[in-house]
Amino acid sequence: MTGREVYLDYAAATPVDPEVAAAMAPYLAERFWNPSAPYSRAREVRDDVERARGSIARALGARPDCLTFTAGATEANNLAFAAVEGHVVVDAIEHESVLACAATHARRTVRVGTDGLVDPAVVARAIRPETELVSVELANGEIGCVQPVREIARAVAAERARRLEAGERTPIYLHSDASQAAGALSVNVSSLGVDMLTLSAAKLYGPKQVGVLWASEDVRLRPLVYGGGQEGGVRSGTENVAGIVGMARALELAIERRASESAHLTALRERLRSRILGLVPWAHVSGPSNPKRRLPGLLSVSFAGIEARRLVIALEREGVFVGTGSACAASRMRVSHVLEAIGMPRELAEGSLRLTLGRPTTEEDVDHAAEAICRAVRAEATRLRLDDASQAARVAALMGSWR
Amino acid sequence: MTGREVYLDYAAATPVDPEVAAAMAPYLAERFWNPSAPYSRAREVRDDVERARGSIARALGARPDCLTFTAGATEANNLAFAAVEGHVVVDAIEHESVLACAATHARRTVRVGTDGLVDPAVVARAIRPETELVSVELANGEIGCVQPVREIARAVAAERARRLEAGERTPIYLHSDASQAAGALSVNVSSLGVDMLTLSAAKLYGPKQVGVLWASEDVRLRPLVYGGGQEGGVRSGTENVAGIVGMARALELAIERRASESAHLTALRERLRSRILGLVPWAHVSGPSNPKRRLPGLLSVSFAGIEARRLVIALEREGVFVGTGSACAASRMRVSHVLEAIGMPRELAEGSLRLTLGRPTTEEDVDHAAEAICRAVRAEATRLRLDDASQAARVAALMGSWR
Repeated sequence: MTGREVYLDYAAATPVDPEVAAAMAPYLAERFWNPSAPYSRAREVRDDVERARGSIARALGARPDCLTFTAGATEANNLAFAAVEGHVVVDAIEHESVLACAATHARRTVRVGTDGLVDPAVVARAIRPETELVSVELANGEIGCVQPVREIARAVAAERARRLEAGERTPIYLHSDASQAAGALSVNVSSLGVDMLTLSAAKLYGPKQVGVLWASEDVRLRPLVYGGGQEGGVRSGTENVAGIVGMARALELAIERRASESAHLTALRERLRSRILGLVPWAHVSGPSNPKRRLPGLLSVSFAGIEARRLVIALEREGVFVGTGSACAASRMRVSHVLEAIGMPRELAEGSLRLTLGRPTTEEDVDHAAEAICRAVRAEATRLRLDDASQAARVAALMGSWR
Repeated sequence: MTGREVYLDYAAATPVDPEVAAAMAPYLAERFWNPSAPYSRAREVRDDVERARGSIARALGARPDCLTFTAGATEANNLAFAAVEGHVVVDAIEHESVLACAATHARRTVRVGTDGLVDPAVVARAIRPETELVSVELANGEIGCVQPVREIARAVAAERARRLEAGERTPIYLHSDASQAAGALSVNVSSLGVDMLTLSAAKLYGPKQVGVLWASEDVRLRPLVYGGGQEGGVRSGTENVAGIVGMARALELAIERRASESAHLTALRERLRSRILGLVPWAHVSGPSNPKRRLPGLLSVSFAGIEARRLVIALEREGVFVGTGSACAASRMRVSHVLEAIGMPRELAEGSLRLTLGRPTTEEDVDHAAEAICRAVRAEATRLRLDDASQAARVAALMGSWR
């Protein structure tokens, strides 16, 4: 292992920001009181929890009492789906937790384009009279596409209007998992037009296993766990005070820094992209061509005929840590369901790296990583006797068959 | 507020031990990697999680792969109940989360004695041929009684043997919530004879919202949340690495210190009891008379005709923080379901304080608190024109009607 380490998997996990850690610290040993206890010290921490809730609510442009704290985005997504019993519509590249929840309902899974984008017209056609929930993430954590949630909200609103007019009483809600998006994009629920929204602290330089589900007052959430009646009875269990305070601080920092960080990450991502394409011209970059439809800090890059898992191992020896898809899928070393769903040919999908940049990433990190990645790719290509010209032709053929 | 503060509500929340906080700290900003990611750094934290699991398993005398980490005891209890669909037997003084889970099943709630103890013979009679789960906590967090779990396990084993002989295939499991007990009592699952056991870090000087459910390999757990398939598919969501490592350390410390701490807390509790009874002879102390059936650090004391909520307010002005029952119930200022279930007369139950001592409690704290409590009680008694003689007679009459 060389001295320099470059971490390029911020979509899998972010370090806790020092300011967030500082905000959390007092709640471990000092302000440890149970928020439900009856004395003044306990009321103080209850107030701190409510202040944190208020801060997150402001970030969402929402009412604080419509927020439910959970142990992370997975639980928040599960809570959203538990609010309905009937038919649901999801797209094929949602996070595992959304797809797994959808699988417990009658459902329609809509396809996405080769760039990962959901077509609002396709969602509109998938909605049936009995559909109760549409769930489309704000941005995808594997290929970085930013979904047209506002336009999908219009389709949902149109169906709602149709039902009202027809005297049909089945409700329909739009949920969006904004876990991967909240660091880069506005999560104002009114302008997004959603009825439920999931956030994760763990993707925002906050603590793991802290998340929140916002649900409009029209949605009647049903508890997944029963007990002491915390969180308005929807989510029992003594509150994770440190985690909640940390999440609020993490979101505040993300919003303060959103504009400058997005610019910083976009520049670094373009640098990484051009370095890689300069060194390996037959590398293929996925995701939407429209830069407004891309997360700033994510580059999904594929090397035809090369095994990504071998690249990961070669790279970690050089101190460069990259993902191959979502961490959940990665641990099982399966090809990502996202790359499958965008129809990426298998020999490209199996050679795909997900490179995600973060707040601490520097130009030097990007250059070091780009060189290490391309060195690893070239070593594999040499081992497999793949030359640039034949690889370029191969990728062109793959692209021809794909598009 | 005076300078001295005495916290006597350790059953509601414990401060994180400095050693636990130190064990957790590296996992926030430095070792923040997602345990499911494919590179070496991630494998390191995966190993750290598994080391923590192994440590907790050793404390339970159990196999590590039978442990599921959850966001606290409430979720662990819910997971235990989700493992069965049929009839359940619980006692009336279980934690809210157990009672709430039981309420989602066909059930029999067995009564407890005036000292809070469950009679194993009563449990045996409550078990029906279709009973799938019996759940009795190891110790109660409000009156401190230690339940005869081993004897109840024998009743469950007898029913299991009967079913085997009769060719009946309905399984029956014994679950015990050991959240309040693990600091003071052995939680060896074999010697307890349980099939499932809940632990909470938050009651062991560990972090909030970290718990574990141990389930024997015979039990088939069913997920409450779906997603990336962590925790053997039973509990999805990126692992709370810091919390898990912290919980393991907290349990290690609790076991290291169990004997000395129990002696220390027992001595302090007896000191507190005798101080209070010395100053207010008509105070009534609840719980079993057998000292082996009492949690060392818990004193449940009742002052007939005095409103506990007024005492809480008077005491917090003196820097003494006490509970009136479980924190969950306290926030709603209801009389504890535990005191109701032991049949305590209402005028005694409404004047009940739950005093719980902890690792940092000193003799000076106890003396200060005892004086403050008795001063507050005497001030109330004076306000209500209650004198010692009439109060003694009143309590004697109440006890006569109760026993």
